[in-house]
Amino acid sequence: MAGKIYIIGAGPGDPKNRTLRMLEAMKESDVVVAYTTYAELVKDLLDGKEVITARMKEELLRAKVAIKKALEGHTVAVISSGDPQVYGMASPTLEMMCANNINVDVEIIPGVTAALAAAAKLGSPLSMDFAVISLSDLLVPADEILYRVRKAAEGDFVIALYNPINKPLLIKAMEIISEYRKAETPVGIIKSAYRDNEEVIVTNLKEWNNFMDKINMITIMIVGNSKTYVCNGKMITPRGYTSRYDYVNAFNS
Amino acid sequence: MAGKIYIIGAGPGDPKNRTLRMLEAMKESDVVVAYTTYAELVKDLLDGKEVITARMKEELLRAKVAIKKALEGHTVAVISSGDPQVYGMASPTLEMMCANNINVDVEIIPGVTAALAAAAKLGSPLSMDFAVISLSDLLVPADEILYRVRKAAEGDFVIALYNPINKPLLIKAMEIISEYRKAETPVGIIKSAYRDNEEVIVTNLKEWNNFMDKINMITIMIVGNSKTYVCNGKMITPRGYTSRYDYVNAFNS
Repeated sequence: MAGKIYIIGAGPGDPKNRTLRMLEAMKESDVVVAYTTYAELVKDLLDGKEVITARMKEELLRAKVAIKKALEGHTVAVISSGDPQVYGMASPTLEMMCANNINVDVEIIPGVTAALAAAAKLGSPLSMDFAVISLSDLLVPADEILYRVRKAAEGDFVIALYNPINKPLLIKAMEIISEYRKAETPVGIIKSAYRDNEEVIVTNLKEWNNFMDKINMITIMIVGNSKTYVCNGKMITPRGYTSRYDYVNAFNS
Repeated sequence: MAGKIYIIGAGPGDPKNRTLRMLEAMKESDVVVAYTTYAELVKDLLDGKEVITARMKEELLRAKVAIKKALEGHTVAVISSGDPQVYGMASPTLEMMCANNINVDVEIIPGVTAALAAAAKLGSPLSMDFAVISLSDLLVPADEILYRVRKAAEGDFVIALYNPINKPLLIKAMEIISEYRKAETPVGIIKSAYRDNEEVIVTNLKEWNNFMDKINMITIMIVGNSKTYVCNGKMITPRGYTSRYDYVNAFNS
């Protein structure tokens, strides 16, 4: 009898950002498949389970192992950090099932995605329409990524950048955004959100590159839109662009 | 002594999508401020607390009450569904504090946002760069919303639409997207995700308007990018656009 695959979002760093459904699915699973670093994220939940880890670029190997284990009747947890759809294991696993005409029971368990978790540490920068863009050019051509950055800048989207560790591409992306937004536009840099060595930096489009050393594998960068401002050290993107909200009168009336 | 404000993401519908940190913050709070419908979302967590509800358009009233209660020394939970940054209470609360020179302790507690939760029911449509756009023109001019829709379409972003209940604007938005994407582009409609009356529909850019009656206040719509396809009834957006991944050989080797 075929088993089941849970494709699980473990949330960012801190176990307190896990959901109850994620914990329940971990408990039900007897096999856990994870990139080595993400196995570490759930190490307190692995007792008595078969744990299969694989390195960074082995998404396909992880998807294959998960599907084969499910076909043998196991309940398999495939782990991503954050949310499993966002540059995680959901899509490779479903693609591999589809390409090989396999239809085992799959549940995608959503999680708190890195951009929202990181942004919460900055204040509330993602409070108007936003675009999520990965700067990794392993699977997507750099030109296509930069074209999307340009369209997001033109549309005045708040922009959340994943994988800014690709520094040459990051510099180009920030140059493109700077064509459309003023130098004072707030930029947030969150290194290792919800982990021991977390650092939260609020800077701007002119000065962000002073913090290049803060950019690692799990750094998220958030570039404000034309209305984002900084107050009490927090990045705030207003919900509305009209003057319909009068916060001073509303507070004092 | 000043209290504290937790701006909490309650996740979508199902209590299993709550995070542990959200539950912890609810426990610590003695005052809960919520839009009436969202108070319902957390009704099992309200015992022994002062509960202050307000209607839909009263964000400012809710922010004001929360801040005043915190200034009196209370620990206040302000509830949004999904994530509190995404068209929720985070930004209005921080804006009101800023406008009135008030600096009480605030923690934004991220949650599973509606787009990711809804998309998980469809498969894995949000697995490449995506744009999140609200079609509510209460605070943002319709022309500006449609301009952003156009830029997201030009950039081949997967597009997650919040507040599609604004049907005239929704129809215009879908017309704009249809200028850039073929009629067969998959469209997902998720009504009441993780609630009793949940409905999950996979359709396309040509036929989505046959399902107009499924669109309510908490419907989320996801429009695929140029590479999104449907397999086994699931919407899948490939992670990469290159042919670097061979799912058949990888599975059989």
